[in-house]
Amino acid sequence: MLSPSDLSAMERTPRAMLINSLPGYKPAMLVGTCNSKRLTNLAIITSHFHLGSNPPLLALILRPSSGRSERHTLANILENKSWTLNSFTLKESAMAHQTSAPYPRDESEFNTCGFPVEWQEGVTSPFVEGAALQVGCEFREHHPLDINGTHLLIGEVTHLSFPQEAHRCDGSLDLMHMGVVTISGLDTYLLPSTSQRFAAAEIDVAPRRL
Amino acid sequence: MLSPSDLSAMERTPRAMLINSLPGYKPAMLVGTCNSKRLTNLAIITSHFHLGSNPPLLALILRPSSGRSERHTLANILENKSWTLNSFTLKESAMAHQTSAPYPRDESEFNTCGFPVEWQEGVTSPFVEGAALQVGCEFREHHPLDINGTHLLIGEVTHLSFPQEAHRCDGSLDLMHMGVVTISGLDTYLLPSTSQRFAAAEIDVAPRRL
Repeated sequence: MLSPSDLSAMERTPRAMLINSLPGYKPAMLVGTCNSKRLTNLAIITSHFHLGSNPPLLALILRPSSGRSERHTLANILENKSWTLNSFTLKESAMAHQTSAPYPRDESEFNTCGFPVEWQEGVTSPFVEGAALQVGCEFREHHPLDINGTHLLIGEVTHLSFPQEAHRCDGSLDLMHMGVVTISGLDTYLLPSTSQRFAAAEIDVAPRRL
Repeated sequence: MLSPSDLSAMERTPRAMLINSLPGYKPAMLVGTCNSKRLTNLAIITSHFHLGSNPPLLALILRPSSGRSERHTLANILENKSWTLNSFTLKESAMAHQTSAPYPRDESEFNTCGFPVEWQEGVTSPFVEGAALQVGCEFREHHPLDINGTHLLIGEVTHLSFPQEAHRCDGSLDLMHMGVVTISGLDTYLLPSTSQRFAAAEIDVAPRRL
């Protein structure tokens, strides 16, 4: 059992490794942005989440202190009011991880890390060409979080593409079919294999496997 | 490809199924809370995330409209300034999912769904006894998000326990060893099996597998 004093006594890197493990498995996507001159940026992100379905809202946490590429992402979103989320496969995870290196602003991770750019009509940010899941978001709200200098950015989903065969009749996406990965801590990329589905839970009804 | 008008034309349930699939795999934990009379509540959550490691901060999104148990969680946190996060296994996922049924406030999901309560010194919220990962958080900040009526709650990690054999030398936790699950969409519980780890990314250095 670790107490607050144990945590504050830890060295910076092992503490970051530990605390980043606490949410459990995290979502893994590549965030595509650009500035007003269409200088592109691509960054791996794990602190993003569903905020609501109607309107369809997703949100990101960006940390100014955790790598220059994230600062570029934040600056681009505030300048250009848009971002994309793009899935990647386990085979691509080495190069997705490489986007977290502190590349200078004028070097695009799309080029350096080997992810081809795709522009789509009506979306001002770049997509990763060939990504199974492509989500275009328009910026809606910015909440600076004073407690540690991070930023919460909320966007509305305005564009969506995925393979039709991964779209189940009930509306959900089959992420395993799409090869989507998940992340543990700061450095581990994983593929789920075993799954169980359940019907919506009701009082006085036992859980029903789908 | 789906446009904003396609999305707004969808029916409520399939749209929720689709939009909840968009972040990719989500973290899955059970949130333990109680009110000032120690009436306990347990709710499954997938919209929680790492906010920072120093101080160690985690955050939750709670949606007033998505089930009565979440409203209880929000009320309890605001009343009692504390919550716990508890991992569960794939074998326990049916009963973890069952916590999302709209139980009345005076019925504790700990009892009804078969998760034994554990109280620990210095933490005012209840833990799930036997959970491999137990995190105690003290409430720090509340940000109501006007865009859709959700609430962002930020807490500091003040208590932490996990099996020593899952704590790697570098500080990270081996979530696979602990049997932690991940969630896709609203109803699918998965176990990762294949993984790759990489060293911290650097400019001009090829990705290095660990």
